[in-house]
Amino acid sequence: MASCGPRARVPHPFDPLEANEIAAAVAVVRKAHGVVAFNAVSLQEPRKADMVAWLGDRAGRTRPRRVADVVVIAPGGRVGEGLVDVDKGSLMEWEWKEDVQPIITVEELQAVEHVVRTDAQVVAQCEQVGISRDEMHKVHCDPWTIGFDGRFGSKARLQQALMYFRPGPDDCQYQYPLDFCPVYDAGERRVVAIDVPRVRRPLRREPSLNYHPANVEARGGYRTDLRPLEITQPEGVSFRLDGRELEWQNWRLHVGFACREGLVLHHVTYKDGDRVRPVFYRLSLAEMVVPYGNPEHPHHRKHAFDLGEYGAGYMTNSLKLGCDCKGAIRYLDAVFPTRDGGVRTVANAVCIHEEDAGLLFKHSDFRDDSVVATRARRLVVQHIFTAANYEYIVQWIFHQDGTIQPEIKLTGILNTYSINPGEDTHGWGTQVHPGVNAHNHQHLFCLRINPNIDGPRNTVVMVDAVPSEAPVGSAENPFGNAFGARRTVLATAGAAATDYDGAVSRTWDMCNRGVLHPYSGMPASYKLVSRDVPGLLPKPGSLVWKRAAFARHAVHVTKYADDQLWPAGRHVPQTSGDTPVGLVDWLGDGSESVEDDDIVLWHTFGLNHFPSPEDFPIMPVESVTLLLRPRHFFTHNPVMDCPPSMSVTPSQVAAAKADSRQAD
Amino acid sequence: MASCGPRARVPHPFDPLEANEIAAAVAVVRKAHGVVAFNAVSLQEPRKADMVAWLGDRAGRTRPRRVADVVVIAPGGRVGEGLVDVDKGSLMEWEWKEDVQPIITVEELQAVEHVVRTDAQVVAQCEQVGISRDEMHKVHCDPWTIGFDGRFGSKARLQQALMYFRPGPDDCQYQYPLDFCPVYDAGERRVVAIDVPRVRRPLRREPSLNYHPANVEARGGYRTDLRPLEITQPEGVSFRLDGRELEWQNWRLHVGFACREGLVLHHVTYKDGDRVRPVFYRLSLAEMVVPYGNPEHPHHRKHAFDLGEYGAGYMTNSLKLGCDCKGAIRYLDAVFPTRDGGVRTVANAVCIHEEDAGLLFKHSDFRDDSVVATRARRLVVQHIFTAANYEYIVQWIFHQDGTIQPEIKLTGILNTYSINPGEDTHGWGTQVHPGVNAHNHQHLFCLRINPNIDGPRNTVVMVDAVPSEAPVGSAENPFGNAFGARRTVLATAGAAATDYDGAVSRTWDMCNRGVLHPYSGMPASYKLVSRDVPGLLPKPGSLVWKRAAFARHAVHVTKYADDQLWPAGRHVPQTSGDTPVGLVDWLGDGSESVEDDDIVLWHTFGLNHFPSPEDFPIMPVESVTLLLRPRHFFTHNPVMDCPPSMSVTPSQVAAAKADSRQAD
Repeated sequence: MASCGPRARVPHPFDPLEANEIAAAVAVVRKAHGVVAFNAVSLQEPRKADMVAWLGDRAGRTRPRRVADVVVIAPGGRVGEGLVDVDKGSLMEWEWKEDVQPIITVEELQAVEHVVRTDAQVVAQCEQVGISRDEMHKVHCDPWTIGFDGRFGSKARLQQALMYFRPGPDDCQYQYPLDFCPVYDAGERRVVAIDVPRVRRPLRREPSLNYHPANVEARGGYRTDLRPLEITQPEGVSFRLDGRELEWQNWRLHVGFACREGLVLHHVTYKDGDRVRPVFYRLSLAEMVVPYGNPEHPHHRKHAFDLGEYGAGYMTNSLKLGCDCKGAIRYLDAVFPTRDGGVRTVANAVCIHEEDAGLLFKHSDFRDDSVVATRARRLVVQHIFTAANYEYIVQWIFHQDGTIQPEIKLTGILNTYSINPGEDTHGWGTQVHPGVNAHNHQHLFCLRINPNIDGPRNTVVMVDAVPSEAPVGSAENPFGNAFGARRTVLATAGAAATDYDGAVSRTWDMCNRGVLHPYSGMPASYKLVSRDVPGLLPKPGSLVWKRAAFARHAVHVTKYADDQLWPAGRHVPQTSGDTPVGLVDWLGDGSESVEDDDIVLWHTFGLNHFPSPEDFPIMPVESVTLLLRPRHFFTHNPVMDCPPSMSVTPSQVAAAKADSRQAD
Repeated sequence: MASCGPRARVPHPFDPLEANEIAAAVAVVRKAHGVVAFNAVSLQEPRKADMVAWLGDRAGRTRPRRVADVVVIAPGGRVGEGLVDVDKGSLMEWEWKEDVQPIITVEELQAVEHVVRTDAQVVAQCEQVGISRDEMHKVHCDPWTIGFDGRFGSKARLQQALMYFRPGPDDCQYQYPLDFCPVYDAGERRVVAIDVPRVRRPLRREPSLNYHPANVEARGGYRTDLRPLEITQPEGVSFRLDGRELEWQNWRLHVGFACREGLVLHHVTYKDGDRVRPVFYRLSLAEMVVPYGNPEHPHHRKHAFDLGEYGAGYMTNSLKLGCDCKGAIRYLDAVFPTRDGGVRTVANAVCIHEEDAGLLFKHSDFRDDSVVATRARRLVVQHIFTAANYEYIVQWIFHQDGTIQPEIKLTGILNTYSINPGEDTHGWGTQVHPGVNAHNHQHLFCLRINPNIDGPRNTVVMVDAVPSEAPVGSAENPFGNAFGARRTVLATAGAAATDYDGAVSRTWDMCNRGVLHPYSGMPASYKLVSRDVPGLLPKPGSLVWKRAAFARHAVHVTKYADDQLWPAGRHVPQTSGDTPVGLVDWLGDGSESVEDDDIVLWHTFGLNHFPSPEDFPIMPVESVTLLLRPRHFFTHNPVMDCPPSMSVTPSQVAAAKADSRQAD
C-alpha cells in the first residue's frame, strides 16, 4: 500500500490526503494510542489565511503544511480525535471525547446484517411474520444510524436495522419489508432492543418484480428499438487537468474530495480577458437530511443525514465509462482509511467530462436574414454515492458564460415499509406495490458557498420581483405596469435567515459592493437562482427540526471561519438537537455582521417525494438543480468569442444577393 | 406552386394545410371577394367529436373534412374571415368584421422601416437626436403592434416603430436606440403620430460591440481551445415518422404546426404493455405576453403577445443541422400563405431528434456490489422563432418514463431604449451598455393542455405539501414529523383559477377518477410540476392585466370547446381588455363544473428578467421548463425494459467470487 517511498509529486495543499499520507497519519496515531479503529483520516484543509497567502505567491511563500484530521474509536467505544502533521509525523492535538458518535462507516454498516440474522430475538420476530428459521439467510437489513432515540441517548453507538426479505438472491428486497426494527449496538456487536409495532404486518410473499435481466426477460424482454447514439471526442477533451487543478473555458478550480462531502471545489476563478477573477473560495454539498413523514414509532427516526452520518465520499461509486458518463472522460480516484488502518482506493470516484449543451446563443434578423448561432459546451464534475437504498448523482456543471449549476439527480430505490391488505396509509405514504408502503419524505440538501466575488469582502442581498407601490393611474405608474427588484441587504446573520418566496421569484445576490459595474452601477455579483426550495415539513420543535437546524430556512449567512464546514455538526449521529451544534451554534444570537466580509452562504434546497408506483421497484432519475449566475460581473456577454456554428452578417447577405443578381 | 395535380398522399386530419390546400382556399376566397390581402389561411382543426370517432376507427368512419380558416384584409382595412371546405372548394362561412385587427404578419412588419425612413417628421426627429439626413439609411425600426393605445382605439391598424441606428451595416442596432416612437398606420402606409419623450436622449455614438466575426476578431479573435464533440447515430434514428405521425419509445403523437402557435401536438398516447393509453388530446404553447416594467409613456405599450399578435409559426426559423441541433435529425417544413395569396415554405421549420439524457436509473447494493445502470434517451421536438429582438427555442421533450417536458430557451437580444449619461433608471431598467437602457420585463408563457388521461373525463386536483395539523407531542404526531399532501379538487372554473405557492411546493394533478391504481388506490394522473411561475407583475386594473387575463393566475381550467384555442382572444392586436375576450370570456361567472369532464388546463409560467450587462449585446440562453409526470398511471416503473449499460446481479457477483476462489 503506497505508504512510503519517494513521492511522485508534492500534493497541492487542497489535495485530499494521499495513500502514503493516510498511512503516515495512522502510524503516528497508532504509536501514541495503540490499537484503535480508524473512523476518519482526512485532510484538515489549510487555514484560509495561509492558503490565500500561498495562492497569491506560490513561489515565495511557505507551502501550507499537510495536516490529517483523525477520528478513531478505541476499544470500549471511546472516541478520540486530533490532528497529525503528516510531513513531520507528529501529533499536533489529541482529545478523547465522551458522548459523541462519529460517522458510521460502510464497514460498520456491513457488519450489522450478519449479527442480526443470528440474534435469537430477531429470529423469533421473523418467525412471527412468517419466515422460517431455515430462511434466515434470506433476511437482510439496511442499517441506519438510530438518528436519535431518547430511550438510548448517545453513549452507545446504535443503529436501527430496517428489515427486508429476499425470496431469491437476485430479488429486490425492498419489495418485502418486515414490520419490526432491531436496534443494534456497534460497540457490543449485538441487538439491544427490537421495536415491534402494535399492529403486526406479516410478510406478504407476492410475486417478485425486479429490474434484473432474468426478470425483465420473463416479462417480455428488453426493448430492441433504441439505435446507438455515439458521443466521441476524436481530439480528446478540451480541459486541462494538472494534478487536481482543472482548467476549462476560462474556468480554473481545484477538485477535492472528502470522505464526508464528496466533491469539494476550491479556489474557483474565471479568466476575464487578462484578469483572473476569483469567484468562489470553496463550494460543496455540506449536508443533507431526508425526513420521513410517517408519525408512527419508530419511523420518526428515519431522517438520514447522509453526509454527516455516513459520508457521501465514503459511499461513493466507482464510475464506468459508457454507463455513468459518455465521451472522453478523466477520472480521479479516492483513497480512504479502512477501520484497521489500511487504505482503501475507490478507482474512478470522480468523473470529469464535457457535454454538448445545445445553443449558447442565437439571433437572426427578420429584415435581412443575417444570423448567428453558437453552440454551447458544458463541463460536468460528477460523483455518485449510494446511501443504502438511494443513489445521489451529484454534478457540478460549469457553463461557458460563467454560470455554475449544481445539480443532483436522485435514483435508486425507495425506502419501504410493510402494509397489510386493506390497511390505510392515512396519507403518510403510498402503497406502491402490494404490501409495500413507501413513506412520504423530503430530500433537503445544504450547499455551503464561500463566495469570493472579486475578493473576500462580500455581502448577500435578497432580491424580490415586485410591482411598483404606486397605484394604477398615479403619476408614477399611470398605466400600472411599473415593476422592479426590491433589494434587501442581509446585514446580520440573524436577518439573513430567510425563506424562499415563489410569489416574488426570490433570489439572493452574493456581491462585492466595492466593485461596481461601469455601466449598470451595480455591484459585481453572483445570483443564487433556486426554485426547488421546499420548507422543512416536520414542525418547529420536532426532532428533525431540532437536529436539522440548517433546513429551517432556505438561506443562512455566517462570517467565514476555518472549521465551520458541517452545518449539522462535526459528529452528527445521535445528536439530540437540544444542544446547539453546527450552524445553529455559529449563528449565535444573530447579531454578527455579515456585510462586506468573508462570508458563507448556506443554501437548503431539494424536493418533496410523495411516492408513486412509477418510482418502484427502481426510481427513474428525478433532478433538482439551481444556478449561480454572474450578474453585473462581466462588462458584457463573456462568450461572444465562442466559435459560431453559423454566422452570416447583413453585409454578407447583401453581397450574396448582389452576386446572385449579377449572375442572372 | 404545388396548387394542383394529384396528391401524393391524403393528409392526416391533423396535418397543417398543405401548399395545394392553401392555394385552393385562396382561390375560393378570391372568387367570392376579389382582391384581398391574405392574413391567415390555416387549418381549422377537425371538430373533436368527429376526430375522436375517426381516430377510434380509421377504416370505417368518415374522414373529417379539410377546412381552411381564412382571414383577409380588404382594401380599406375591413377584415373578413370565414371557413373554406378545401376539398369541395366551397365557402362554408364568411363574415366581415369591424374594429378587429388580426395578427401582424412578417410582411407587414418588414414594410414599416422603409416608410418610416422617408417620413418627414421622422427625419426631423432623427435630426433632433443627431442623425443627419444622409444617414437615414442607417435608421432601423422594430415595428410592434401598438398593443393598445386609448388615443387610437382599434379601427386603424397601427404599429409602434421602436427606433434604432446602425453606424455600420453589421453593427447591432440595439446598441443605438433612439428616444422617439413613430406610430404607423398599416392601412394608410404612413406615420400618423410620433411619441416624443419630455426629456430628450440624443444618439450616443459609442464604439460598437458586436458578436459578428470581424468585431470578435478585432477584440482578440475566437477561442481555439474547444475540441470537437461529435454526436453520431450510425444506424439512424430510433423513431418512426409516418407523415407527421411520430412513434418513439412507446410514445405516439401527431406533430402539427400552426401559424400562430407553432408546434401543436395532438393525440399523444403511450403504449403500456399491450394497451395504447391516451394521455393528451392536444398540447401547445397557446399564448405569451412580455410586459415591460417602465412606467414612462409610451413604454407601457411594450407587452408583446408574440403568438396572438405575430404568430410563433409565422416567425419560425429554418433550422440547420449542426447549428440548431446535432445527431440524426428529421425535419418538417411549414407552409404559409403570403399576403398576395401565394405560398411561402419554411424548410426545416421543425426538428425532431434524440439526445442522450444521462442516467435513466441506477442502483448498486452496498452489501454485495451488484449494480444496474441504465442510460436514458430523450426525444426533442423543436422549433425556434424570432420575435424581432428575441429568439424563443421551444422544445417538447419526451422522456422514456412517460414524462413530457416542455422547455423554452430564451436568447437573442434585449429590447433596448436610450439613456442619457448620468440618468437614473429609477430601477425600471438597467444600463447594460453606455447609452443602453434595457427595461425590466417578464416572459409569461401560456400552455394549453387538453388532458386525455385514459380518456376525456378528467379532473384537476391541486396538491400542496403540508405538515400534519396535529401539534408536536400529540397522539397523532408524537415526534412532529408527520406530513403529507393536501389535495383540493378544483370543481369549477372559478375555483380552479389558482396561483403558484412555492411554500407548499404546489403541483396540479390532471387525473381520471374513474381509473384507480390497483396498488395506491389513487386516480391515474399526470402531475404538472412547474417551479418558474412568477405572478403577473403589472398591477390589477393595469392595461396588461386587462389584456393578458390568462396571466392573472398560474392555472385556469375550462370545459373543452372546439374553438377555445387562444386565451388572449382570436384577434389580439389592439384589444383594450375592456371587453372580455378569450379565456376571461370562457370562464364566465366561474360556476361551470370542470369535474370528470373533457377539460383544458391553461398554465402560465415563465421568468422575470431584470437585465444585466452579461445579457448584452446578445443573450446567452436562459431556460425555463416544467414537467408533466405520470403518477399512479403506470403499474410500476415503465422503463425497466430499457437495456442496461451495466448489470451485475448478486448471484453473478457471488459466482464470480466463487470462480476466483477456485482459481486461487
